[in-house]
Amino acid sequence: MPSFLDTVRWNADGLVPAIAQEAGSGRVLTLAWMNRESLERTAASGEAHYWSRSRRKLWRKGESSGHVQRVREIRLDCDDDAILLVVEQVGGIACHTGRERCFHKRLDDGAWRDADPVLRDPKEIYGDD
Amino acid sequence: MPSFLDTVRWNADGLVPAIAQEAGSGRVLTLAWMNRESLERTAASGEAHYWSRSRRKLWRKGESSGHVQRVREIRLDCDDDAILLVVEQVGGIACHTGRERCFHKRLDDGAWRDADPVLRDPKEIYGDD
Repeated sequence: MPSFLDTVRWNADGLVPAIAQEAGSGRVLTLAWMNRESLERTAASGEAHYWSRSRRKLWRKGESSGHVQRVREIRLDCDDDAILLVVEQVGGIACHTGRERCFHKRLDDGAWRDADPVLRDPKEIYGDD
Repeated sequence: MPSFLDTVRWNADGLVPAIAQEAGSGRVLTLAWMNRESLERTAASGEAHYWSRSRRKLWRKGESSGHVQRVREIRLDCDDDAILLVVEQVGGIACHTGRERCFHKRLDDGAWRDADPVLRDPKEIYGDD
């Protein structure tokens, strides 16, 4: 029986981009990447799993910070090559910099300006090492 | 003088993923791709420009449908490899299928189901040919 995983058009590296959007606020938190296994685990567990391209490993969002994403809805786009997760962001912080979301630089008069406050020191979130 | 375009971490194909989010509703409309020129033109014109990977050309969103995206805000994420556009979607239809947004398939009990209505016949939007 074909799986919902077969519908997705994985790229040459076996990945698709996945947007996480906060259910309550509608805030776009992150763009991360998923492979087949991370989408499968996300669907099965109800918690967002991604593929870390830098560490080259499966990554349960919040596994070290505790800031997991509880998934309310998984959507696929019209040409089957992008995912949208509607999530509850536990702890209110999605970004490893200690901000609510990763999209914190705003283009303003030809330069990127930091537009969002740091809510928590990353050292506090991840420890010092 | 370095340009804001130099901050962006373009991938091996010279592209970054760009999310379009509707300003009023917070709805995530599309995930498309930008090259350097499309980001430059988006910033200069205030209208969303992308790179069409299938047609291999610069593409002003709405150039054939009239459904342009007026850009209110351009954001970059913490590791400089994803863009978020906050837009007004003229005509209320972002998807070439005639739906409000591209993310119209929802995972439901192990299968993708069409969750959003078609608001306008694509033939009406683009013509028959």
